[in-house]
Amino acid sequence: MTHAADTLEALATALPPESLVTDPPAMDAYRWDRARDPNAGVPLAVVRASSTAEVQQAIRIAGAAGIPVVPRGAGSGLSGGSSAVAGGIVLSLDRMRSIEIDPATRTATAEPGALNAEVKAAAAAHGLWYPPDPSSFEFCSIGGNVATNAGGLCCVKYGVTTDYVLGMTVVLADGSAVTLGGPRLKDVAGLSLTKLFVGSEGTLGVITEVTLRLIPAQEARTTLVAAFPALASATAAVLGITAEMRPAMLEFMDQETIGAVEDETRMGLDRDAAAMLVVQCDEPGEHAARLIERVAEICTAAGASECFATSDPEEGEAFAVARRIAIPAVERRGTLLLEDVGVPLPRLGDLVSGISDISARRDVPIAVVAHAGDGNTHPLIVTDPGDPAQCARADLAFGEVMDLAIRLGGTITGEHGVGRMKQPWLADYLGPDVMELNRRVKRALDPAGILNPGAVYG
Amino acid sequence: MTHAADTLEALATALPPESLVTDPPAMDAYRWDRARDPNAGVPLAVVRASSTAEVQQAIRIAGAAGIPVVPRGAGSGLSGGSSAVAGGIVLSLDRMRSIEIDPATRTATAEPGALNAEVKAAAAAHGLWYPPDPSSFEFCSIGGNVATNAGGLCCVKYGVTTDYVLGMTVVLADGSAVTLGGPRLKDVAGLSLTKLFVGSEGTLGVITEVTLRLIPAQEARTTLVAAFPALASATAAVLGITAEMRPAMLEFMDQETIGAVEDETRMGLDRDAAAMLVVQCDEPGEHAARLIERVAEICTAAGASECFATSDPEEGEAFAVARRIAIPAVERRGTLLLEDVGVPLPRLGDLVSGISDISARRDVPIAVVAHAGDGNTHPLIVTDPGDPAQCARADLAFGEVMDLAIRLGGTITGEHGVGRMKQPWLADYLGPDVMELNRRVKRALDPAGILNPGAVYG
Ligand SMILES: Cc1cc2nc3c(=O)[nH]c(=O)nc-3n(C[C@H](O)[C@H](O)[C@H](O)COP(=O)(O)OP(=O)(O)OC[C@H]3O[C@@H](n4cnc5c(N)ncnc54)[C@H](O)[C@@H]3O)c2cc1C
Ligand SMILES: Cc1cc2nc3c(=O)[nH]c(=O)nc-3n(C[C@H](O)[C@H](O)[C@H](O)COP(=O)(O)OP(=O)(O)OC[C@H]3O[C@@H](n4cnc5c(N)ncnc54)[C@H](O)[C@@H]3O)c2cc1C
Repeated sequence: MTHAADTLEALATALPPESLVTDPPAMDAYRWDRARDPNAGVPLAVVRASSTAEVQQAIRIAGAAGIPVVPRGAGSGLSGGSSAVAGGIVLSLDRMRSIEIDPATRTATAEPGALNAEVKAAAAAHGLWYPPDPSSFEFCSIGGNVATNAGGLCCVKYGVTTDYVLGMTVVLADGSAVTLGGPRLKDVAGLSLTKLFVGSEGTLGVITEVTLRLIPAQEARTTLVAAFPALASATAAVLGITAEMRPAMLEFMDQETIGAVEDETRMGLDRDAAAMLVVQCDEPGEHAARLIERVAEICTAAGASECFATSDPEEGEAFAVARRIAIPAVERRGTLLLEDVGVPLPRLGDLVSGISDISARRDVPIAVVAHAGDGNTHPLIVTDPGDPAQCARADLAFGEVMDLAIRLGGTITGEHGVGRMKQPWLADYLGPDVMELNRRVKRALDPAGILNPGAVYG
Repeated sequence: MTHAADTLEALATALPPESLVTDPPAMDAYRWDRARDPNAGVPLAVVRASSTAEVQQAIRIAGAAGIPVVPRGAGSGLSGGSSAVAGGIVLSLDRMRSIEIDPATRTATAEPGALNAEVKAAAAAHGLWYPPDPSSFEFCSIGGNVATNAGGLCCVKYGVTTDYVLGMTVVLADGSAVTLGGPRLKDVAGLSLTKLFVGSEGTLGVITEVTLRLIPAQEARTTLVAAFPALASATAAVLGITAEMRPAMLEFMDQETIGAVEDETRMGLDRDAAAMLVVQCDEPGEHAARLIERVAEICTAAGASECFATSDPEEGEAFAVARRIAIPAVERRGTLLLEDVGVPLPRLGDLVSGISDISARRDVPIAVVAHAGDGNTHPLIVTDPGDPAQCARADLAFGEVMDLAIRLGGTITGEHGVGRMKQPWLADYLGPDVMELNRRVKRALDPAGILNPGAVYG
């Protein structure tokens, strides 16, 4: 018997049949995330675990065989973090989906495969709110959110995933399971290990349960949509807004994005605008509307050609939806190379104009959509797989955008994670010392390097 | 020459005279924090570093000599985290105090010795706010706040220190200095190392600079003070309040504390009340006052004997001050053994009544003051150093309070840290697996164990 056959047999013995997928076509559904990494391998097996114990067994078997384990949530990732590794195990959490809400402690305890939208809905049934809202919230898992420290639209005011994670159960590389934190709002006993696992992209352990802090339901929102004739006036408006208030949403779309979204929605967005902002305020009573009036003034002063405000929740949500579908809408125009660069807010204008220069110089379309209020932008490089020369130019542009962000004091990834697609840029960004510090922690927790090899550390 | 003399000579050669204290009486000012740990040793030297480079030199010399380094901020800690270790170096950051505010990125960059109050004041000069507000904010350092992940009064709504730390420079055990994060609101490139160092209590590295997120100045606050005839009605009111809103302050004092504070302030607090709550709301316009009305209704329904509301900022602040001086006020009644236990909110009532039972059974006064909205309480055990039998009973009570918190699903420390005083209870609380995980990270970052030995890990 081959080594691989031994491992498969061990998996088949340890796990119920519904937890194991080894049929190649069936495994294809677990090989790629939304970055469609062309280098994804063919795994030995996909384990669709139904419990922490099954995760432990799969990891122990992988450890004994010395083969990689790639944790996988819903596969909506944009950095190749859950690309399958040839001959390894894809450890999918998609069947572990239970959610319990405890209104007394105002916490949710969820299995990792539960979708973000399901957690939100379960909380809402008790008048509570789980704020973090990646645009993918309807089809990304809470475990994936925790593993990537996902951001979203309301995060400019309400914070990102890590701000809501109180505890977790995590299976370590040696197959042991530990529980960190719990439904306590403050706890400083020992190192901040919960926070260390948040954003660790499946490289330190497999998260099998999370305890999340919930807050009271959000107040009604008032929404402003502003169109700008020039990129610089839009980014100036962003700075003007954040200088004096904390909006609950502050999103940016450039002309290419507006066009793609308008193609999908036919909602009458201004295709001629160089950029558009979608802003929401959620202060109580008439205060949201009053602040939105002030936002309109700031936008007008910065040169907006049009401002439209609404306190109608459905109308406001339609603009949020328009923003959320931006990535899939642009995806219709070609295969995307997705960036996630972030800069200190005052450099947003330089970033956006620099990206437009790169797009012109490399002759590749780059649509820019941004969580502008956090300085976190998603330049979407649109490639034509049938045009290898263009794809090569796009690859160059991909690196140049990250180099630009680093030069502007920014990061190569604000919320999607390093995964495999941005791995080659990580050391440049962090520098050798911090890169080595990352590796030291990784080695301490996963000495054999079986957890998600190829992601993050290289 | 002795080994110690070699080390002293190396320090004297490497550092300017004003950075080195070796005179025993002068060193006494750096041997204890506010826990007054009776086991604090006599250090070889106190280094009062003036720069990251001096911190690096001190650590390299300590590493070469194999002697401990105890990082020290302002020494306001309540867990013996900066108790001097015999023959080691106390590395004080009290001279590194510069603060720069960047209104464009809305960040503060501060040296660790800057006081929390100084950071707040520097931010306020630009209309900005650094929220975390330990009661000690006028005399604790920002570096100590980061090293302990300090909480405070407004943290129930605005979050604790870790929520505001965007980056830092930290000197590692090998003397190298690394910069983690920076003025970027979102950054997920690599592991969350910044968050790992927050709350690490000087055991993983010495923080020599921090970058902090600032937010717009807080709105005006409305304050409610409510007196209760029974502990259980006060804790029921806490639950009622947090169930439907997010107050900006929700603090608790029991009868013993009220009496001690009234002795200091003579402000007319109700000495007969079993407990008192101080609540603030800071919603814009009339919304704060409207919410405070609702808080008063909840308190009354829970059995409050008196409610007093005020929108006058000075009057409101006087009650906040009363709460903030609680620890020093109780300290006048004896030497304190300070607890910092926290429980999930619904167990607050059980915790408070259980503490009252322990106090009765062990015949030691225990004053309870709490950041009630987070479930984080400070039972203050009042001991009489002249009565060894009472001190022995107090020591038993100290452990029993932590055991009680653990039984109620709580933590042994919500914000003060483990330090040396709570170290013996940490493994019981975390369990052997999580304790070992803590040690694994510690060993990876400080293999020789020179940073703050005796604290946290034991
Ligand atoms: C249209 C679209 C819009 C998006 N918008 C946003 C946005 O606004 N903000 C944002 O942050 N992201 C966004 N994303 C990216 C993506 O949805 C997030 O990164 C999400 O958190 C990934 O969750 P997932 O369950 O799909 O994880 P996966 O893609 O399956 O995995 C992501 C990473 O997490 C690891 N992982 C997953 N589950 C676990 C686990 N249980 N334990 C340990 N490791 C695990 C994987 O190994 C991988 O490294 C968007 C994606 C799309 C397609
Ligand atoms: C009256 C009173 C009220 C208090 N109220 C609160 C409260 O409401 N909330 C709260 O959280 N705390 C409170 N505290 C506790 C204390 O003020 C905090 O723990 C504070 O964060 C300690 O800061 P410090 O500068 O005094 O640190 P120190 O006491 O000097 O040190 C504390 C710990 O941090 C480490 N450390 C300090 N500086 C550094 C550095 N630069 N790099 C690495 N490690 C470092 C030390 O080694 C030690 O382990 C209170 C204390 C008092 C006396």
